[in-house]
Amino acid sequence: MPRTPTGESSIARAVRIVSAFTPQDTSLTVSEIARRTGLHVATASRLVAELAAHGLLERGPDREVSVGVRLWELASRASPTSSLRESAMPFLEDVHSVVGHHVQLGVLDGDDVLFIERLSAREAVVNYSRVAGRLPVHVSSVGHVLLAFGSPELQQRVLGGPFERYTERTVSTSDQLRALLAETRRRGFSLLHGHVHEEAASVAVPVRDRLNTVVAGLSVIVPNDTRAEVHVPVLLAAARGLGRHLPVRPVTVDDVPRAPGPARRC
Amino acid sequence: MPRTPTGESSIARAVRIVSAFTPQDTSLTVSEIARRTGLHVATASRLVAELAAHGLLERGPDREVSVGVRLWELASRASPTSSLRESAMPFLEDVHSVVGHHVQLGVLDGDDVLFIERLSAREAVVNYSRVAGRLPVHVSSVGHVLLAFGSPELQQRVLGGPFERYTERTVSTSDQLRALLAETRRRGFSLLHGHVHEEAASVAVPVRDRLNTVVAGLSVIVPNDTRAEVHVPVLLAAARGLGRHLPVRPVTVDDVPRAPGPARRC
Repeated sequence: MPRTPTGESSIARAVRIVSAFTPQDTSLTVSEIARRTGLHVATASRLVAELAAHGLLERGPDREVSVGVRLWELASRASPTSSLRESAMPFLEDVHSVVGHHVQLGVLDGDDVLFIERLSAREAVVNYSRVAGRLPVHVSSVGHVLLAFGSPELQQRVLGGPFERYTERTVSTSDQLRALLAETRRRGFSLLHGHVHEEAASVAVPVRDRLNTVVAGLSVIVPNDTRAEVHVPVLLAAARGLGRHLPVRPVTVDDVPRAPGPARRC
Repeated sequence: MPRTPTGESSIARAVRIVSAFTPQDTSLTVSEIARRTGLHVATASRLVAELAAHGLLERGPDREVSVGVRLWELASRASPTSSLRESAMPFLEDVHSVVGHHVQLGVLDGDDVLFIERLSAREAVVNYSRVAGRLPVHVSSVGHVLLAFGSPELQQRVLGGPFERYTERTVSTSDQLRALLAETRRRGFSLLHGHVHEEAASVAVPVRDRLNTVVAGLSVIVPNDTRAEVHVPVLLAAARGLGRHLPVRPVTVDDVPRAPGPARRC
């Protein structure tokens, strides 16, 4: 890999540059990019120019830089989550038409839930998660189902803490989390009141593929004052329907051993 | 930019590698990646390893490589199309609940329509477009509204051809396209029967932001045997509602001059 005198590859620097953009800051000046990435302005400027030449970044009329549509296209068209998302959409719509508020689908990525789709009503209750947003697994109901039916290694790692708090009710000890996971396994769903935001409750169920592997969590976010468990049957039915429409292995989740297998010709 | 002895930067090569994946081929061996990109197997292998280290690619249990969830996350969370897509979703759902079949939202990227969102019924008519898929502007009804209300430069370029054919009915001459664009401007919508697929008709309307700039096209795809123009009013109403919910400049479309402005401190 060609490396600059400081030893970091240009791919690594490109990743740092793209990571500088957030949902709140979708366009940045080159000097702000340099500040956020710790790169020299000249280096940042050269890399931005190269990324823009490939359409991975775009420059607006005011010279502000933003993430390019081409990057989204490259990332989306062959993403393993796209087929899951595509299969899930009709089922998310079904649930959303009945429950309203927010319906969302999340997968495990590292020790986080990554939300790959969400449908929201215009006047829905507050919701912190967003499409392509993350929450730590211990915080959200989708995280609890992915954890409860996930690998022992993941459970052990997450049960070891730390437990970032979002509200007074967020899980804060391993005993508390262990009890909630046992309850999730016993009942087949997770119901959390006010763990992410005081005003919201969430209910999540696992989505299983045809090999019975839990590949995603499907949830609704509703106001905390409603009896949220009434939504369990519609979620379970949608998750079963979705499971039947999934390819056998739609996403590489972290329960797959990553150790290199036996040498093979590739 | 550090370059390899052949003069191509590692970013350029990384783009070639990610571009090798398609909706049909979401996982590839390293040797297949090398074949598709024209890179040596050793070079492809090194780059795949680096991209995988950043989570931009992922290796499955069988050592096959796929696009990483992290790439999708980076591309999606700050993409200018994400805010458009997020704003549009409730309106797409409204149209979909009334019309069924396919409802889709497309933006201009170069001389193509890039579809950034689609809702489909489980038993809908055939549809070639997909999320993160493209069609040439002369082929699709969304393309016709983006072209009809687009820049004179874009119109001149596209009217010069060539005109790729999808069916017997696809626009194949500049006179035919000019007449259809005039009709689109006069009626305020585009209605095409069988231009992409014999069995499907599509109706598209422009989505205008609060500065009255056309930033996207909203369409429905329905069976070719229905009177597709009955869907125009619901599309127009949804496009107006969406327009009111848009930030003033949600996407950088190609009608923005790209020439460098006066020098400014950045």
